[in-house]
Amino acid sequence: MRLALVVAHDGTDFEGWQLQDGRRTVQGVLEEALARPCGPVRLHASGRTDAGVHALGQVVHGDLERPWTEPLTGLRHRLNAILPEDLVVRGVAEMPESFHSRKSARSKTYRYRLRLAPLRDPLSQRQRVQVGGGLDREAMAEAGRRFLGQRDFASLQSSGSSVKTSVRELTECKLVDAGTELDVVVTGDGFLRHMVRALVGCLLEVGRGARSPDWIDEVLERADRQAAGPNAPARGLCLERVSYEPEFQERLDRAVSAVGEALT
Amino acid sequence: MRLALVVAHDGTDFEGWQLQDGRRTVQGVLEEALARPCGPVRLHASGRTDAGVHALGQVVHGDLERPWTEPLTGLRHRLNAILPEDLVVRGVAEMPESFHSRKSARSKTYRYRLRLAPLRDPLSQRQRVQVGGGLDREAMAEAGRRFLGQRDFASLQSSGSSVKTSVRELTECKLVDAGTELDVVVTGDGFLRHMVRALVGCLLEVGRGARSPDWIDEVLERADRQAAGPNAPARGLCLERVSYEPEFQERLDRAVSAVGEALT
Repeated sequence: MRLALVVAHDGTDFEGWQLQDGRRTVQGVLEEALARPCGPVRLHASGRTDAGVHALGQVVHGDLERPWTEPLTGLRHRLNAILPEDLVVRGVAEMPESFHSRKSARSKTYRYRLRLAPLRDPLSQRQRVQVGGGLDREAMAEAGRRFLGQRDFASLQSSGSSVKTSVRELTECKLVDAGTELDVVVTGDGFLRHMVRALVGCLLEVGRGARSPDWIDEVLERADRQAAGPNAPARGLCLERVSYEPEFQERLDRAVSAVGEALT
Repeated sequence: MRLALVVAHDGTDFEGWQLQDGRRTVQGVLEEALARPCGPVRLHASGRTDAGVHALGQVVHGDLERPWTEPLTGLRHRLNAILPEDLVVRGVAEMPESFHSRKSARSKTYRYRLRLAPLRDPLSQRQRVQVGGGLDREAMAEAGRRFLGQRDFASLQSSGSSVKTSVRELTECKLVDAGTELDVVVTGDGFLRHMVRALVGCLLEVGRGARSPDWIDEVLERADRQAAGPNAPARGLCLERVSYEPEFQERLDRAVSAVGEALT
């Protein structure tokens, strides 16, 4: 029986997604919780989040050795009673064998949260990165548009990844401007290692006036990590949503909107 | 030389304001930081926040043994470079000897953050308390209005406090409704121990339909802690603002709005 889980977590106190001996990782904590009602399950995520990166809609899947015969909202309730406060299962759905959280994913949306102010804000600093004010938002928005389309993003890829191609298609790269809070929202068919953090690093170079929006084209054309700006810190980044074809997506959406027990 | 500091903190990892041996408190961390550029200073807050309670605009004061002769924005910068990420000094102002952060305070505003949803949200749970949906917001707003005016709030006072009178005047008690996020904003000339948390506890009793708004009058008339609802958890509460007469307020506002160094 194949299950998919939609998961949210505050990444601050996790050392990323992937299982590591003696480290607190999202996969480790989730597999341990799932083992109690369901027995051992190996989980696979839509992608590995780095240490400190948050998620609102991470999707993971795994196969149960024995089928869960009660309603899946009950399993969600059981899991959330076991899980720590910084990790929650938003929905549990039964999926066909053809579903794979990573291989079936059509697109992902990330949000990067900036705070434009001279002082840090202790109440948002776990999820929002403070940068000095005075950024040119028009120039940043224009620079963001330069990333759109099917491009070779080799310049935004950190070393240590072994993907076949660094070509990806971005369908959205926009600024959401709310005064001192400025979010960068990016949607694409896939992302290379540290790609969103490098992209935000480039937008900040442009926002500060160190580079013009035209520089983005140059960065991409050079296909060299040295050409881009530094990675923005992990803690500003959140995986908001993973999208699938309608057959799968409807099951996930229904699982998240199903009314749980009164309190979790 | 009397200084006032406007301070913000995430209360999660502090055991409240007041100095305690071997405990991490806001007063302890702040006095230690201030001692480095200024020598030993005893600080006094507008009020003691409990463990877990946050602040956006706590005001504290203390007297320097030797005057600070450079610009006070420089002192703010020095302090913020020393202080941990969950505590920030938003402004430093020189005040007349007649200023006292607690005794001179005219009013305080608190905000209590609720999340009305069946599941917890890891990304907001340090500052927002999740309660099951289905609250009657109209009834809660009406109940809130019953607390307005000069009243004896003995029923909302936790034991262990030794104030002369439990009469206080509330000038604001309103709901700020943003979908799943519901904030209770309360302004008054002073607050008893745990008063806002008990007030929110009462509003939740009414919101859940366990009591009618009329019950609030009964709670206050009985002047008995047993008459009210349970305290809402500390972590939803934030001291947003302390207000003073114009002579003092203008100095504090100027200190906060003064542009600091580029990054802090």
